[in-house]
Amino acid sequence: MVAGETFYSHKRGLPELRSALSEYMTNLYDRDVGPERVTVTASGMHGILTAMQAILQAGDNCVIVGPVWPNAQAAAEVAGAEVRLVALQAENGVWNLDLDALFASCDQNTRMIFINSPGNPTGWMMEREQQQEILEFSRKHGIWIMSDEVYTRLVYERQVAPSFLDIAEPEDAVIVVNSFSKSWAMTGWRVGWLTHPAWLNHAFNELIEYSVSSVPPFLQKAALVAVTEGEHLVQEIRERCRQGRDIVMSALLEHPKVAVSKPQAAFYAFFQVQGMNDSLDWAKQLFQETKVGVAPGRAFGPEGEGWIRLCFASSKENLNKAMQRLTVFLDRN
Amino acid sequence: MVAGETFYSHKRGLPELRSALSEYMTNLYDRDVGPERVTVTASGMHGILTAMQAILQAGDNCVIVGPVWPNAQAAAEVAGAEVRLVALQAENGVWNLDLDALFASCDQNTRMIFINSPGNPTGWMMEREQQQEILEFSRKHGIWIMSDEVYTRLVYERQVAPSFLDIAEPEDAVIVVNSFSKSWAMTGWRVGWLTHPAWLNHAFNELIEYSVSSVPPFLQKAALVAVTEGEHLVQEIRERCRQGRDIVMSALLEHPKVAVSKPQAAFYAFFQVQGMNDSLDWAKQLFQETKVGVAPGRAFGPEGEGWIRLCFASSKENLNKAMQRLTVFLDRN
Repeated sequence: MVAGETFYSHKRGLPELRSALSEYMTNLYDRDVGPERVTVTASGMHGILTAMQAILQAGDNCVIVGPVWPNAQAAAEVAGAEVRLVALQAENGVWNLDLDALFASCDQNTRMIFINSPGNPTGWMMEREQQQEILEFSRKHGIWIMSDEVYTRLVYERQVAPSFLDIAEPEDAVIVVNSFSKSWAMTGWRVGWLTHPAWLNHAFNELIEYSVSSVPPFLQKAALVAVTEGEHLVQEIRERCRQGRDIVMSALLEHPKVAVSKPQAAFYAFFQVQGMNDSLDWAKQLFQETKVGVAPGRAFGPEGEGWIRLCFASSKENLNKAMQRLTVFLDRN
Repeated sequence: MVAGETFYSHKRGLPELRSALSEYMTNLYDRDVGPERVTVTASGMHGILTAMQAILQAGDNCVIVGPVWPNAQAAAEVAGAEVRLVALQAENGVWNLDLDALFASCDQNTRMIFINSPGNPTGWMMEREQQQEILEFSRKHGIWIMSDEVYTRLVYERQVAPSFLDIAEPEDAVIVVNSFSKSWAMTGWRVGWLTHPAWLNHAFNELIEYSVSSVPPFLQKAALVAVTEGEHLVQEIRERCRQGRDIVMSALLEHPKVAVSKPQAAFYAFFQVQGMNDSLDWAKQLFQETKVGVAPGRAFGPEGEGWIRLCFASSKENLNKAMQRLTVFLDRN
């Protein structure tokens, strides 16, 4: 800002940021990702909406794997498409995707499959074999894959989650969504990026011009520092989340009224509570009595009812206090 | 940023910024504008798109007064509406709006009239009487007015341009677009605001959530400083533009091949060149030979062909040099 970089900027992002993201992804994934396939957006959310506006039209449907953060569904509807939810199945608290059910939900009007893995709220992480099968299905039927991978670095048993960028060709109908909000904790900066076939550049130039025109250049410079010099932060944030997960899980796993499995990724515990009929009422009562804030499962789709999401991206002190209060609440109710 | 205000923020803007904008507008216009009618957006452009998405649906048409900055038309199309252009008429270089033609272009599917006054590229400024007639037409036929007033402070014979906010009731179907880009020269900060009936708040909350989610809070703090402590800057920028206008107009008015009238507002000279057949070719040739950049009139709609837009929001030194080169070019071609 002091250098005066406060004027209109490149629609699809500063060339130096797009190059740095290309290098970052080429290091992270099994395949090279060229800067011509990178578009900087005003948040991951803005990336999702922009890409859906480029791909989806009235009459199309978009198949979304849930329970999932509800904004993806809303964005598909803003873009004019019909939404079909395909539910992950929980077995003993572990979430799984039934690929046959996913493919059966697609028809000739299906233009996109939206997958958020690692997932909010479930912590579910799709494995390579399923990604490969979905990619083959996409190629065979001409259906786009939008893969929301904003939690890709927040995994606890490995360095990075399986990504469609490990297996897709540059021309495949695959759009991957990323963000500076999670891995670098830059939620309020509103910077994200899309990785996509290069032939979408013209559409993205237009759609960004007609929405925010560009991301402020000085925020892009901050993002450039994050991606080139911030790897230690990603590691610190992940370590902090891992500790948070351990605090939360040891309390939840111990409680007889709670059914939960240890999430493999992201920073949410998603659990069932015995005797809970209405997750929204339960969350409200918990907040009123203890000031502990959680999200009701139904916010993530009908299949989320009966579940509660608790975010463990917080300090040990806060989480220890919260879990003490939550345990007392569970004992009492 | 140093204070750590770098996390998710209010969708429709920080309460203190919305209050400050309410106070700023209440001082500027003939009527009070409450903060419940103010929504902060990620630029004026983002405000236009958000409002069009809230109002327009497939099957609607949007009547746009041109020649005008082409992004308004694009935004209406992104929102799914058909666009009808109504052309201002130039008489001796002065632009006028024929209200009968405007009203005749509206039919039962017309959901919005979009007006940019003071206008880019024409410098046209709508007077109070016409605003009053359009507002009455809007009330009678249930048609929204979207008034893009981003150049409202860049007027040269008075303090502020006539605004629909001087005459509209809070419940009128009127949305006024504003921006920090022009009056405070904050183009790269990407902050603007809408003024609108309060009952649109829910729709704007949703549409902002699903596009950028919020404007970075520290940028909103900068906007707060601009609107509460930046009045001297508005005056300085206006004075600089007035000097720029005088330099540009004295060169253009003098040249026998140019037809132009002195713009009342905004920071563009919009002029005709004798013997010019193709404004895009002409602008390209001018740039190649002299490095003076202008916009071809046809970029602002078909009625702009034959015209050239020159921006005079620049330093005296640059403008003097540019006008010398332009004069030589005009003499030679």
